[in-house]
Amino acid sequence: MKVAIYGYGNLGRGVEYAVSRQEDMELVGIFTRRDPAAIHPVSGVPVYAADRLDEFTEAVDVLILCGGSATDLPHMTPALAGKFHVVDSFDTHADIPAHFAAVDKAAAESGHVALISCGWDPGLFSLIRVLGSAVLPDGADYTFWGRGVSQGHSDAIRRIPGVVDARQYTVPVPSALEAVRRGEAPDLTVGQKHTRECYVVAAEGADKARIERDIKTMPNYFADYETTVHFISEEELQRNHAGIPHGGCVIRTGKTGWQGENKHRLEFDLTLDSNPEFTAGVLVAYARAVGRMSRRGVTGCKTVLDVAPADLSPLSPEELRAHML
Amino acid sequence: MKVAIYGYGNLGRGVEYAVSRQEDMELVGIFTRRDPAAIHPVSGVPVYAADRLDEFTEAVDVLILCGGSATDLPHMTPALAGKFHVVDSFDTHADIPAHFAAVDKAAAESGHVALISCGWDPGLFSLIRVLGSAVLPDGADYTFWGRGVSQGHSDAIRRIPGVVDARQYTVPVPSALEAVRRGEAPDLTVGQKHTRECYVVAAEGADKARIERDIKTMPNYFADYETTVHFISEEELQRNHAGIPHGGCVIRTGKTGWQGENKHRLEFDLTLDSNPEFTAGVLVAYARAVGRMSRRGVTGCKTVLDVAPADLSPLSPEELRAHML
Repeated sequence: MKVAIYGYGNLGRGVEYAVSRQEDMELVGIFTRRDPAAIHPVSGVPVYAADRLDEFTEAVDVLILCGGSATDLPHMTPALAGKFHVVDSFDTHADIPAHFAAVDKAAAESGHVALISCGWDPGLFSLIRVLGSAVLPDGADYTFWGRGVSQGHSDAIRRIPGVVDARQYTVPVPSALEAVRRGEAPDLTVGQKHTRECYVVAAEGADKARIERDIKTMPNYFADYETTVHFISEEELQRNHAGIPHGGCVIRTGKTGWQGENKHRLEFDLTLDSNPEFTAGVLVAYARAVGRMSRRGVTGCKTVLDVAPADLSPLSPEELRAHML
Repeated sequence: MKVAIYGYGNLGRGVEYAVSRQEDMELVGIFTRRDPAAIHPVSGVPVYAADRLDEFTEAVDVLILCGGSATDLPHMTPALAGKFHVVDSFDTHADIPAHFAAVDKAAAESGHVALISCGWDPGLFSLIRVLGSAVLPDGADYTFWGRGVSQGHSDAIRRIPGVVDARQYTVPVPSALEAVRRGEAPDLTVGQKHTRECYVVAAEGADKARIERDIKTMPNYFADYETTVHFISEEELQRNHAGIPHGGCVIRTGKTGWQGENKHRLEFDLTLDSNPEFTAGVLVAYARAVGRMSRRGVTGCKTVLDVAPADLSPLSPEELRAHML
């Protein structure tokens, strides 16, 4: 299977590495809106200007879109789904139905498969939420994120005057996690489920008390959470907070029996050194499924919820049944 | 959707309870090879003799087979897949390819869908193994079972002369579990992953030392494991070991990055008060998928690896995308 990458940031680089570990896939090129001559991928794969993409419609089986959800993917995915089978990682949960509609129209009209909102949340976590609620209908599910770096919250802190750099960790509240695991099915606000830990490099002479207040009172991002702010040096930020770890869990607890006398817990946990590299691994596995679905004549917009697990694996159905079932 | 149950032991009863929690399903009957007059289901659903099943081919959308893997399902599933869309929980891992072939022939020839080996292992655990290996190809996966009651091992102890009753718990070795979670990818034999805890009621005057030796040296079942034997009274067995709890986990650890510099862990855990009732919940969710696949014209034998998650849920694709993705 021949795949290409569109957009070469952390996620695009992760896809480059992930494809190199898949024996049934070949990376035919990286497409960028920057100057291709300025990009030197470690794999040595050719880099092309994004506007040359139309030359590659025959050479690429699946195009993996590595743009951002805020400004790139809402127009990028519908546009490219008219020319390629594509996978994206659109993760603005509230806007998924609108994104789906736009992509579905383009993909259905042009006869392509476009899989959107792929990654771990939305993505693998969505799959587990659906699975958990289907097998334990009398129950409740919970999603916790972290401990991990939230890029959006880190960016929000960086926009505060006097802030040079920042890293924000989302951290699950241990007592909330334990109550959920015990099957108590508590009602929890987002702020009761997570705390926010901020590591901030302030500019020389900046008013740290004001910065801390600006962070803690920021609506949506921090005001509803217990937030701690640590001022650190640029060196310490680089030394201790350079990685992009993340993770989290989906927990479904529920009852069975004629009178609900038996309790059950289903839990799915991720602990990730590199959020973009793991996300890339998910995109690449689903790109395989997109390639297979396209060969079966499937068209239109799909999500991880429409993909049978066997389509993710390089193994044949016979091998899967003999060794993995 | 109209479903029926074939076989009314612990699993069949669990299916009866599970269907009652699904708003889009109706249980039309229980079929038994015993005397129907002797069975009084708590749901009040009619009980029929198994040989009347042919009268119900139009009335039943999906038949859920609740026989045992050792002697029932190898002939039951192929025979009934010739007349109904069926789901079974065949769990003898080594014999799955042969069972698949027999069921596929019957189902394909008669135009039915037959989903085999459904439950949590094989079943949900299989799905996670496939998912984990697809997204983290450079890694290793581990399945641990327990702490929970193994029916097969309990039965094996009961066959020893002088044993009145017994309950055997399979227990993961904590240090093995921790090494796996740390990403050490250790080589582990089954005996290094699990210990076996036996609670035995001996007959009056029986030679307990001989019974203990017979258990600990039993090939395949106990000889390769660290096994502990506790002799207890009939009353204590009933009081403390009447339930059928089980559980376990699938852990995939792996590396990403150009040189494998980042580590990741994916883990799926189940903690179940009642093994048969949870398994029944899985069967019922997959029965929904079988019903939908049959309406789309799918035929032949399938496994959980062939089912898209959306087909398990009573929610519409639009609802799933808006609320679960």
